[in-house]
Amino acid sequence: MTSQPIKPSIVSMRTSNPIRAIVDSLKVTPNPAKSMLSLALGDPTTFGNYKLHQSCVDAVKNKLDAYSANGYPPSIGTVAARTSIAAKYTHPNAPLTADDIILASGCSDALNLCIGVLCDEGKNILLPMPGFPLYETLASSKGVSTRFYHLQPHNNWQVDLAHLESQIDENTACIVVNNPSNPCGSVYTKEHLIAILDIAERHHLPIIADEIYADMAFKPHEFFSMASLTTNVPILSTGGIAKKYLVPGWRVGWLFIHDRHNKFSEIRKGLVNLSQLILGANSLIQAAIPEILAAPQSFYDDTMKQLEESSHLSQELLKGIPGLCPVFPQGAMYLMIELKLEEFDGIKDDVDFVEKLVEEESVLLLPGKCFRCPGPFVRIVLTPPKDQLETAYQRIRAFCERHQSAASIEKQKAK
Amino acid sequence: MTSQPIKPSIVSMRTSNPIRAIVDSLKVTPNPAKSMLSLALGDPTTFGNYKLHQSCVDAVKNKLDAYSANGYPPSIGTVAARTSIAAKYTHPNAPLTADDIILASGCSDALNLCIGVLCDEGKNILLPMPGFPLYETLASSKGVSTRFYHLQPHNNWQVDLAHLESQIDENTACIVVNNPSNPCGSVYTKEHLIAILDIAERHHLPIIADEIYADMAFKPHEFFSMASLTTNVPILSTGGIAKKYLVPGWRVGWLFIHDRHNKFSEIRKGLVNLSQLILGANSLIQAAIPEILAAPQSFYDDTMKQLEESSHLSQELLKGIPGLCPVFPQGAMYLMIELKLEEFDGIKDDVDFVEKLVEEESVLLLPGKCFRCPGPFVRIVLTPPKDQLETAYQRIRAFCERHQSAASIEKQKAK
Repeated sequence: MTSQPIKPSIVSMRTSNPIRAIVDSLKVTPNPAKSMLSLALGDPTTFGNYKLHQSCVDAVKNKLDAYSANGYPPSIGTVAARTSIAAKYTHPNAPLTADDIILASGCSDALNLCIGVLCDEGKNILLPMPGFPLYETLASSKGVSTRFYHLQPHNNWQVDLAHLESQIDENTACIVVNNPSNPCGSVYTKEHLIAILDIAERHHLPIIADEIYADMAFKPHEFFSMASLTTNVPILSTGGIAKKYLVPGWRVGWLFIHDRHNKFSEIRKGLVNLSQLILGANSLIQAAIPEILAAPQSFYDDTMKQLEESSHLSQELLKGIPGLCPVFPQGAMYLMIELKLEEFDGIKDDVDFVEKLVEEESVLLLPGKCFRCPGPFVRIVLTPPKDQLETAYQRIRAFCERHQSAASIEKQKAK
Repeated sequence: MTSQPIKPSIVSMRTSNPIRAIVDSLKVTPNPAKSMLSLALGDPTTFGNYKLHQSCVDAVKNKLDAYSANGYPPSIGTVAARTSIAAKYTHPNAPLTADDIILASGCSDALNLCIGVLCDEGKNILLPMPGFPLYETLASSKGVSTRFYHLQPHNNWQVDLAHLESQIDENTACIVVNNPSNPCGSVYTKEHLIAILDIAERHHLPIIADEIYADMAFKPHEFFSMASLTTNVPILSTGGIAKKYLVPGWRVGWLFIHDRHNKFSEIRKGLVNLSQLILGANSLIQAAIPEILAAPQSFYDDTMKQLEESSHLSQELLKGIPGLCPVFPQGAMYLMIELKLEEFDGIKDDVDFVEKLVEEESVLLLPGKCFRCPGPFVRIVLTPPKDQLETAYQRIRAFCERHQSAASIEKQKAK
């Protein structure tokens, strides 16, 4: 046998998560004198302060005891799960039945199905910048070109509509819209969503609406599903139980087929085909979906209350920290902070900021680069317990004051 | 907006499970006077007579109560799960550590990763015929050509080695070997596996060893993992908890990277890349894997005892049924029966046999066509309770006797 290594496939080599590449190459040596505080991971379960509702735990236990949900579910998901999801998410302007829903192994898999059915190799897909890096991973893996439309940080991260439209060409297969947004924490108004839909309609483009943070809007902001705002643009919406029900590891996501004028008749078949590749989501959790979705409103209100309090706390504690310009969130569970690099001495960029912050203060944030953020930003996750957030912000303040440039201090005094 | 339907991707259109196409087009109208008996689905949980062990139920419940396993697992699986799997499946000739294991959303997803990393579009893959149809679904979805090597029904379904070798060309990327086999119920001897490995070695081809039925051999047959029999052929083995632990719906599978002479150094990276697409298996079940794998030997012995008894019962009750020539299994949970069409009147082929059997006797089998079986075969699943198997075999006997040709009856009398 030759000693040549076997070459991995082209697809496997072009599959990579940019967040991994950046995080893996981060020089993160925490300060041994300080406990590590990570505000980096978008997983609400990490700290134990966000817990799924007891009724959801009980529902899964009941399925275990009944021995009735251990077998193969249908590739598109069980009828019972799909029926209950349809009942919960149907909307007068965007009606759903069980037949319009496909369950998947998490919202990642649902996005994989959506991009997989709409995009051929060589076509292009329009993605938000900054945005969730998995869109790029999924598209690139399929040989689909990625084009990025700008979000405007100081305009509530609204889409730069002219820029979005300028990115469309004859090879564009679809537009991905993520609302509420990771990493931005933005929640778009009805008017803004309609403006995006208008572009899609004029260019005959379907939309993938990633709504995994559906309903997670802070008052007075309100979440509108894209599908409820159009009668002409065909939409594949994705969602799941990960965030709202606080179980991202359970890997049950879904997609909704919002057909318009039968434009998705063949897409529907293609999705069923693709769903047969790996057989989707865990049977126990599928069986518990009707009970999970019926968790009391108070459970969900508590989650949102905690998140809003953390947002307010952040607003208060980040105020006046030199060099930081936070963009306060309207929903989801993230907060982006712009770095005014000119106010610091010797901080090159967002990655440099993140590395030095870990080294000196043992606080880990994600650099905006992970999300293809054009300027120097860092993302903070709002889910740690309040005392940890407080400590983290104190340390961030100390760090920023320590690295503040002489010119910036002068300017501050002059004010 | 134009009223043109949106075209689904080429990939989604070339993704199809042959079993689905055949089953969906089967004309199956059961006899309303008889209860339906399905011996078609390879799911041991359907009838309630095969139940997972209480310790596995308890393990998952404990994880639920601890609230410690609801977050995102790493894309390749948790260290704890991979460590316990490595400890259980390592072999002196094929050592495994946690780093050699990737968890996936069921064995289907593990196979998807293996085919995905080894095969480029336009290459070909060698698959067993008859064989599990998902191999073809996964390969075709990726634009990989499928070539089928013959198994010999009356030689314990051993591979026709000369035919296997004749199918290899410069575009062959790998060989899939499924042992113990679905649909055949065969368990290959050490010598036969070595003969297959010898061909792979001479042609510098890696092997995907689908060993989801590992250890499920009926005495005196013995299961050997392919990786334990070679020091030169690099192997990706797939497995999972679906069959042995009786939880196919839980969707936790895995692949083992058995590198040889660093031939898989790049393949390993490619697999990690691909694992990032959908984030793999449910976190609760991953957390329970150490306890699941520790289910007592007596639980597993009981499963095998039941299966062996069903195999013996089948042997006894199928004896002397006109037109049927069963190939008795050596393991797994399937039994293939060759149909001697010349002994019947008016039965065209295996699909026709299956349709008429349902119509008259309300017994559902799968036609061999679902597995690309070259001759007329039907597959029986051994997992229904014994009384149901008995009833099914009585009805099959009545059916075959009713359709026996005059010539066959004459021949029988002459004996």
